[in-house]
Amino acid sequence: MQWARFRSNDGRIGFGAFEGGQIAEYEGDMFGAPRPAGRILARGEFTLESPCTPSKIVALWNNFHALRLKLGKAVPAHPMFLIKPGTSVIGPNTPIRRPTGYTGKIAYEGELGIVIGKLCKDVPLSEAGDRIFGYTCVNDVTASAVLDENPDFAQWCRSKGYDTFGCLGPVITTGLEWSRLSVITRLDGVERQNYPLSDMILPPEELVSRISHDMSLLPGDVIACGTSVGIGSIKDGCAVEVEIGGVGSLVNVLSPSAT
Amino acid sequence: MQWARFRSNDGRIGFGAFEGGQIAEYEGDMFGAPRPAGRILARGEFTLESPCTPSKIVALWNNFHALRLKLGKAVPAHPMFLIKPGTSVIGPNTPIRRPTGYTGKIAYEGELGIVIGKLCKDVPLSEAGDRIFGYTCVNDVTASAVLDENPDFAQWCRSKGYDTFGCLGPVITTGLEWSRLSVITRLDGVERQNYPLSDMILPPEELVSRISHDMSLLPGDVIACGTSVGIGSIKDGCAVEVEIGGVGSLVNVLSPSAT
Repeated sequence: MQWARFRSNDGRIGFGAFEGGQIAEYEGDMFGAPRPAGRILARGEFTLESPCTPSKIVALWNNFHALRLKLGKAVPAHPMFLIKPGTSVIGPNTPIRRPTGYTGKIAYEGELGIVIGKLCKDVPLSEAGDRIFGYTCVNDVTASAVLDENPDFAQWCRSKGYDTFGCLGPVITTGLEWSRLSVITRLDGVERQNYPLSDMILPPEELVSRISHDMSLLPGDVIACGTSVGIGSIKDGCAVEVEIGGVGSLVNVLSPSAT
Repeated sequence: MQWARFRSNDGRIGFGAFEGGQIAEYEGDMFGAPRPAGRILARGEFTLESPCTPSKIVALWNNFHALRLKLGKAVPAHPMFLIKPGTSVIGPNTPIRRPTGYTGKIAYEGELGIVIGKLCKDVPLSEAGDRIFGYTCVNDVTASAVLDENPDFAQWCRSKGYDTFGCLGPVITTGLEWSRLSVITRLDGVERQNYPLSDMILPPEELVSRISHDMSLLPGDVIACGTSVGIGSIKDGCAVEVEIGGVGSLVNVLSPSAT
């Protein structure tokens, strides 16, 4: 099943089941006990919003073997992460905005996103799967020149925390068999990343359990599982597409700061 | 003026003006146009909650000259920060909880906290003061052994992001003349930090303006201005008090994880 949040052409925000390009609207709490509203929004009657509005994105570093080996890093003993604030989130077809005054490189990172369905606090591994609502595509955007600008302090939260730097969507797919799938990232249609999710070091249920011992995860929070090889920079005006089978394609264009 | 959030003895959460140990309750949005509710809660009829519920705490590193010089660091050209999630926040007289399974050192850091009153996005320095609602005390708690556990990745968000590691309160004071004040931190009544806020490298209005160019700041968000010399560890059962004149004393006890 695929869940989407939408803005109807008359400006209303809602959510529902996405199928065949249309949305069967639901009411209530997407992560609670949502009820069918009895309304169908046909293609053309809505645009997709970010499929959830996380209080935070917990973004993994060094969670794929191929990239780890390329960078010569050891297997981490625990999930290594930073926090991207909720204010960084945008949905599909919304522009990524170059930060005002920043002229440096802006990098894409195509990733699998775990969407939390229930409060997670010290969750045992055996119960972690039940706390996962579904999966979405993530483009974990980074102002690369900011990250290492100060030799004393790696600016992970700043370089990855700008408004519009947390691209999520297009939908949340439940019951996704992620281990058979790949993340494909394209720049203006040209493939730049294509890596199997089976190469993940700490898989989703383990991430949810381990991170829930570090901080409470709330319904709608997203864990971005980290990226693999093929990271590169986005030129102004370029469209980045992150595609995962069963979830779909998340497309965002990098807009210069003037617009 | 001092603003407080409270839990009444019958379990109701509210907010109001704190004066002489009692609260004149208000209704509406603390950061909007709150209206007096016409009710007074006398001493003993309530307990204080965290004075705001930030979506994030933006926590500064290297923002006081005395600590910078002690550590041999350069003056940063921009605010260096990490994000503590909203889930880390507790109010006064609430226990700091040792993370389950963590037996290492837990450090206190007494700090001034800026409470944001209005949406901040690319705010010019000249307008930054108007976006500050007031000031509170912060104890920026850290699981020190986690921070440098992995040589490849400094775990700022993890080591400082645990539930209960963002202590705020007791109240928010408006119009605080912070530059004449000092932060005093005591462990079980023994003074361990006493530093003048005038030693701050990037002062509050500059922090608000500069950070608002990095990410949107929302009403109720907190910028923790960073700490200075005298950081140390908290033993289980020990009470940490952070006091700033005009704001009051924020007291939290470190509770072992078993309780």
